[in-house]
Amino acid sequence: MKTPHSSALARALAWALAFLAATTRFAAAQPAADPLPSWNDGSAKLAIENFVAKTTTAGSPDFVPPAERIATFDQDGTLWVEQPMYAQLVYCLSRVPAAVAAKPELKDVEPFKTVLSGDRAAIAKLSFPDLEKIADVTLSGMTTEQFQAEVSQWLATARDPRWQRPYPDLTYLPMQEVLRYLRANGYTTYIVTGSGQDFVRIYAEQTYGVPPEQVVGTIGGTKFGYDQSGQPILTKLPDVLLNDDKTGKPEGIHLMIGRRPVAAFGNSTGDRQMLEYTKAGPGARLAMLVMHDDATREYAYGPAQGLPDTKIGVFTQSLYDEATKDGWIVISMKNDWKRIFTFEP
Amino acid sequence: MKTPHSSALARALAWALAFLAATTRFAAAQPAADPLPSWNDGSAKLAIENFVAKTTTAGSPDFVPPAERIATFDQDGTLWVEQPMYAQLVYCLSRVPAAVAAKPELKDVEPFKTVLSGDRAAIAKLSFPDLEKIADVTLSGMTTEQFQAEVSQWLATARDPRWQRPYPDLTYLPMQEVLRYLRANGYTTYIVTGSGQDFVRIYAEQTYGVPPEQVVGTIGGTKFGYDQSGQPILTKLPDVLLNDDKTGKPEGIHLMIGRRPVAAFGNSTGDRQMLEYTKAGPGARLAMLVMHDDATREYAYGPAQGLPDTKIGVFTQSLYDEATKDGWIVISMKNDWKRIFTFEP
Repeated sequence: MKTPHSSALARALAWALAFLAATTRFAAAQPAADPLPSWNDGSAKLAIENFVAKTTTAGSPDFVPPAERIATFDQDGTLWVEQPMYAQLVYCLSRVPAAVAAKPELKDVEPFKTVLSGDRAAIAKLSFPDLEKIADVTLSGMTTEQFQAEVSQWLATARDPRWQRPYPDLTYLPMQEVLRYLRANGYTTYIVTGSGQDFVRIYAEQTYGVPPEQVVGTIGGTKFGYDQSGQPILTKLPDVLLNDDKTGKPEGIHLMIGRRPVAAFGNSTGDRQMLEYTKAGPGARLAMLVMHDDATREYAYGPAQGLPDTKIGVFTQSLYDEATKDGWIVISMKNDWKRIFTFEP
Repeated sequence: MKTPHSSALARALAWALAFLAATTRFAAAQPAADPLPSWNDGSAKLAIENFVAKTTTAGSPDFVPPAERIATFDQDGTLWVEQPMYAQLVYCLSRVPAAVAAKPELKDVEPFKTVLSGDRAAIAKLSFPDLEKIADVTLSGMTTEQFQAEVSQWLATARDPRWQRPYPDLTYLPMQEVLRYLRANGYTTYIVTGSGQDFVRIYAEQTYGVPPEQVVGTIGGTKFGYDQSGQPILTKLPDVLLNDDKTGKPEGIHLMIGRRPVAAFGNSTGDRQMLEYTKAGPGARLAMLVMHDDATREYAYGPAQGLPDTKIGVFTQSLYDEATKDGWIVISMKNDWKRIFTFEP
């Protein structure tokens, strides 16, 4: 039987569409892969899943348009390990010999003398003003491109003291899953860190999939000028334009993003105001705090809930009480996280 | 003749694919719509088209990965009219009566007394420190949300003195086309303005399709605190953290974006360092300056090329010479733009 072309085409398309529909139905019938496989089932995991569902389902009373899907994450202690010392501080101490070589007059001046001595006990006792002097000398005075090269080189060679691994290996797998899960659902994920914005930007894209413009951190000034060959350069200054910690976190979010987040994740009193600011907006909000209660797999510190007070990443009982009262969710590393690191057996 | 299902399906799919291929070829054979219809054919339009083609065509030696496709645009005089007075300055002057009502002690103090007098000649003669005092009082002291409400209300009612239209109508159609054309080709378009970041953010999304996080401007500080009901608020401070003009533009770009742009557009000496910084990177770069040489359809001012010196949006001969020498492209509003405003007949 002869078939006119148009009719054959219509039949072919009908077949093809039926085939596509059948395979699509088949795919839809498969259970969706768990987006948070490193989380144990429990209220923390459920809170994340429920929040994403209700803010991204069209017609939901809590629906958030994609442009407003802003989620902010503290870094140290929330996305990666901050004990026994913040990574940026380890970096600054490692740069002291090079800084002294460039400025020999610092050799016999404190706190540089102590750092050069290698006396770990004395270094651990350095005061905050001492650490500021070390930060000034190691984080400023160079061009932004020289700084990028220096940090990149450090990242390639530095190893943490406990696991002897590169620092980017110390990210928490469950939080990496949250970052990816939120992004897959139209969220923009920002890092909001007390560490230096320029420092974290150098590894944030590779480590977390967060590009430089989505890193909010402590902001140092730069100065535009020209090098000896007349090329424009930006030189890093010791001035701090914004200290992105505590009250500085909502201020930094306003400065860099200009919108209030709908979800925020932290782990210490430095994140309290960011979570308050996030939670105070209308509609569905998610505020979560990582509690370090797993001395075996990571570290245990608070002092909330009787955990040891290590002075780094302080999570006070008053923060814990505010979280309980205001519907923030406390994540127990010990109970909520099935697996913490990719390198775990 | 009986046909097994699998064979019928294969035939149907082959038909459907052939049909799709044919229609796709047909579509490809149609000339693409001109993405820049308000531009006259000429070297400026061609430079934009060539730049986009070579930076976005896979395999091109000048190919730029999407994440690095950053284009920055000055606002006043580049995206919209800046004569006879910057829109933000008009706003600040309009807010003086409300500011004085809130702080009656300012009524008999200069420069507020002069602004309240309505004496246009005297207002036009106010000094820069006078204008700073007016900016302090009208751009700070309120919460970020109150400021947003005040600016939104002004935008809804204010009319420019020449065309008697809302300020957002004064955007240049050819530049709106460039913004859209670049975004359609994977570029992220940032505004980099000497006006206040918080001010421009309020209308940038609706006016230019540029969301708040992609507006880089002069940055004022904010202070986190709580209102009387205990809700967290950010109060705008008079402190200027970054003056986003001249050398401040590349500094602001580093602060807010953290990557060097590959394309930059400006119109005055305030944009010179941004264009130098953009042009100094490797690979293909596009640096363009809008020259206001059309007194009939818009305004004519320089003083480059013998144009009048109006002290606003100054385009010096030395900037013109640098552009010529370094391969920046000067856009003549008179010759390169077929149509300037949407409201033109």
